[in-house]
Amino acid sequence: MVKLAENRYGKSRVRLVRVKRHADRHDLREWTVQILLHGDFESCFTDGDNSKILPTDTMKNTVYSLARNSSADCIEDFAKELVAFLLSRNPQVSAAEITVSECTWEHATLSGKPHPTTFVQASRELQTTTATRARSGAAKVVSGVENLVILKTAGSAFTGYIKDALTTLPETRDRLFGTAVSANWTYGVGDSTCAELRPKIRELLLRAFAEHQSESVQHTLYAMAQNVLDHVSEVSDIQLAMPNKHCLLVDLSRFGQDNPNEIFVPIDEPHGYIEARVTRE
Amino acid sequence: MVKLAENRYGKSRVRLVRVKRHADRHDLREWTVQILLHGDFESCFTDGDNSKILPTDTMKNTVYSLARNSSADCIEDFAKELVAFLLSRNPQVSAAEITVSECTWEHATLSGKPHPTTFVQASRELQTTTATRARSGAAKVVSGVENLVILKTAGSAFTGYIKDALTTLPETRDRLFGTAVSANWTYGVGDSTCAELRPKIRELLLRAFAEHQSESVQHTLYAMAQNVLDHVSEVSDIQLAMPNKHCLLVDLSRFGQDNPNEIFVPIDEPHGYIEARVTRE
Amino acid sequence: MVKLAENRYGKSRVRLVRVKRHADRHDLREWTVQILLHGDFESCFTDGDNSKILPTDTMKNTVYSLARNSSADCIEDFAKELVAFLLSRNPQVSAAEITVSECTWEHATLSGKPHPTTFVQASRELQTTTATRARSGAAKVVSGVENLVILKTAGSAFTGYIKDALTTLPETRDRLFGTAVSANWTYGVGDSTCAELRPKIRELLLRAFAEHQSESVQHTLYAMAQNVLDHVSEVSDIQLAMPNKHCLLVDLSRFGQDNPNEIFVPIDEPHGYIEARVTRE
Amino acid sequence: MVKLAENRYGKSRVRLVRVKRHADRHDLREWTVQILLHGDFESCFTDGDNSKILPTDTMKNTVYSLARNSSADCIEDFAKELVAFLLSRNPQVSAAEITVSECTWEHATLSGKPHPTTFVQASRELQTTTATRARSGAAKVVSGVENLVILKTAGSAFTGYIKDALTTLPETRDRLFGTAVSANWTYGVGDSTCAELRPKIRELLLRAFAEHQSESVQHTLYAMAQNVLDHVSEVSDIQLAMPNKHCLLVDLSRFGQDNPNEIFVPIDEPHGYIEARVTRE
Repeated sequence: MVKLAENRYGKSRVRLVRVKRHADRHDLREWTVQILLHGDFESCFTDGDNSKILPTDTMKNTVYSLARNSSADCIEDFAKELVAFLLSRNPQVSAAEITVSECTWEHATLSGKPHPTTFVQASRELQTTTATRARSGAAKVVSGVENLVILKTAGSAFTGYIKDALTTLPETRDRLFGTAVSANWTYGVGDSTCAELRPKIRELLLRAFAEHQSESVQHTLYAMAQNVLDHVSEVSDIQLAMPNKHCLLVDLSRFGQDNPNEIFVPIDEPHGYIEARVTRE
Repeated sequence: MVKLAENRYGKSRVRLVRVKRHADRHDLREWTVQILLHGDFESCFTDGDNSKILPTDTMKNTVYSLARNSSADCIEDFAKELVAFLLSRNPQVSAAEITVSECTWEHATLSGKPHPTTFVQASRELQTTTATRARSGAAKVVSGVENLVILKTAGSAFTGYIKDALTTLPETRDRLFGTAVSANWTYGVGDSTCAELRPKIRELLLRAFAEHQSESVQHTLYAMAQNVLDHVSEVSDIQLAMPNKHCLLVDLSRFGQDNPNEIFVPIDEPHGYIEARVTRE
Repeated sequence: MVKLAENRYGKSRVRLVRVKRHADRHDLREWTVQILLHGDFESCFTDGDNSKILPTDTMKNTVYSLARNSSADCIEDFAKELVAFLLSRNPQVSAAEITVSECTWEHATLSGKPHPTTFVQASRELQTTTATRARSGAAKVVSGVENLVILKTAGSAFTGYIKDALTTLPETRDRLFGTAVSANWTYGVGDSTCAELRPKIRELLLRAFAEHQSESVQHTLYAMAQNVLDHVSEVSDIQLAMPNKHCLLVDLSRFGQDNPNEIFVPIDEPHGYIEARVTRE
Repeated sequence: MVKLAENRYGKSRVRLVRVKRHADRHDLREWTVQILLHGDFESCFTDGDNSKILPTDTMKNTVYSLARNSSADCIEDFAKELVAFLLSRNPQVSAAEITVSECTWEHATLSGKPHPTTFVQASRELQTTTATRARSGAAKVVSGVENLVILKTAGSAFTGYIKDALTTLPETRDRLFGTAVSANWTYGVGDSTCAELRPKIRELLLRAFAEHQSESVQHTLYAMAQNVLDHVSEVSDIQLAMPNKHCLLVDLSRFGQDNPNEIFVPIDEPHGYIEARVTRE
């Protein structure tokens, strides 16, 4: 005999562009939404009974319909609205989990000034949030950033590690340190809005990365997490995942040349991978 | 005050091609390995002390050195060897987690016969396994398949679902059902080897998908999981994730044509998403 | 003063799934179509006059409408139908260029037999064709294959090349030779249909690759092209592009191990790249 | 009898990071280089004679060795150096073609100021150049930009086009116009350096896109090309390719809502595609 242990379902990659037309400028947002529902869906799996199934096509329609009426101007508020709407209309749903990611469009700069109705997609970096709520509980909001690609050319060393018969890596007090940060932080209580906190947290991450005397990826990851927790009381914990995107120093001595930390080969694979979650004591 | 709550680190995307040269033919395997270690690494994060850090570069070397000596001819055995090796040599490591994925190379068929030393990369499908072991425990092996792209043109319906003000999807008793299956099953005790069980499990998944009278993705997902658990006693549970890769029937009536379930637009986004874990009672 | 020198426009990535429902089995085809038109469009560019512009949205509709009525069962015939249709209905168009690519769906094999209505996407390989015709000329059909990923573990050497101060590559009489072939051949006159010739040409490419004693990628590329031209009179020329997807022999001597051509690191970048066109004299 | 009609070969995706360490800041460049050589290589193809073959591995070494000595601080100068070096050292080469693309790294901004040694990868946009030279000729330099992703929310219409039985697209005087520009311009004679001209050309493209009252993609493409040619005498022609990355207005009337050009679905496929080359008369 077998049984259903866990399940969830929903709609992924619902893409949305929203334009707000102000007198002096337009605002442009591009969001990608994922909806996942938990609930009493067992009869669908075991008996083919769809009577408790909200079609994923309807979820897609819901995103667009709500977006039209929504006053949310950050992804966190829109995610919370979607959670509330789906729970209120679907008694068979026990918990809803909405993830929204935003890709960055900036006003084009012409002669140093932003053009009011023209936009440039500035970056591959994504701003993200996941709002989850069980029917009987409070909403949990985890916001983050994906693919924040950064590199520092000073202040990074890696020495003092374990050496064994399989070690070939030389120690260095001066290396390039490149990564693509994925950060996810949990909001607790506080007075500031998510829209206010996001740029502040992003800059705290960047500043710690920039100013840290790094002895390892782990060492700097912790400093970045600590900088956020030290300066933003609204954040209760933060998880960081940081691949070590290696830049290998090219051996030019074979050609009679030196290479004073100037010419590197960036490689995509293999890469180191470090992740940790840092909380308040 | 902040503290380190959780952490792990390792090396990703260590790629390996292994050739075995038999008298009458060669065997070719291409594996991609990920190593993740848990352990007593707190001083590295908080103090920049690398004395307990096995460099991820050494992990990479370990993969190649072990592969040369290994007699493993399936990814599960190689993953378990790597776990054992890393735990035995690194007392600071409390648990090791090794994931290996294999992409499929088949002997090229010429005039209906396999050529002994020429290979074709047959598919995007990946065979996967993750072996994990804490220092004091037994190894857990979860094997699976990624990106098994399948589609059925008969035996799939979707009716009887919730209708509300946001519903626009028409019911259908005859639709295309396409998906890209991700499956992960846990091995318990039994007499068969992983190498013997894998093709059997894959065919059980395919057969259930093919023969099921589907009332929904959920309904068929469950039938596929049940088919594996019913016929392979070595599997203790199975998790399936199945996006609904929609093929939309084109409305040709605008051009005075009918469309008797013949012409469809396949779309990548948005897509439905269903996942569940099925266990033994 | 500036002027329009060249232009073309059309629709890309029009995706289509077509199901033919026979009594004993279904056939499934997935095609992606690109339409490009040349013609008298200058006033559109210079004056914003759209009176000669067939909207790309209409081109998309055309693909679906024609697919419903078409009896084409290979991509070459469908491409030629589209060319003829567009030229006949649009006097402002001087030439049309249609590219169709097909991804491979095979009937799922269960207990050794093909299931009539269930399909597996077998490969990343694409079958392609481009049909072009100027209003006053004959159609030209160039068919091909993209991403035919193959590797041979015997019969490949690379020696006798130029050595200079920047050479570090060692010569070898026994290396792995992996590539992802892009082939494009032009059909001339002949009795066989494109549908008959395609599998024959593909096997001729594979056989030459497999059986050739390769002194370089160039050497084998030429043998593959020659094999097609020698055996298929309907092909007037063939172009092949073959990246050299290097597999680097791992130096295990650092760990006291030998490596008798057994353990390799496959790398995606950088890669060698060789292309040539071979014709009849 | 068959013969070699055309051929070229080289190395692709040679990646390079170069750090210049000034007293007050570091400069960081990331370049990807492709080398393609034409020449007297026929005996390699037909006879397996490698005596005139410069290995692609040596080309890779050449990139790194030259980069160490080079004073080039723009991709055009580095490409021209590579062309000259390869022609001077390889008499068997009749023409060399070097493509360099640069991805953008900007100094991280902290408290509004650029950090001297920390960088953010700002964009997916690539700056590109291809320098080609036959042994006996002058170098030709074509520079460009890839994947300049832009969108305008005002000043874009599409009306007055051909209507036929397959037309379903409604006319509009107010639509979103999004694209990912690929531009390639040819440098002729002039006093300014490529490094000076690039940002000027990029802004001329952006300004024309922003300020144009667009009747079609073609119409705006031409205005962008004209703006460059009118203001940069050093450019002799320019080619632009602009996919029409459609944003579809969502029909909310089904849910009793209006949609005053506010909520859109961006789609990746299918997409319109327009390309043209504009020259001086």
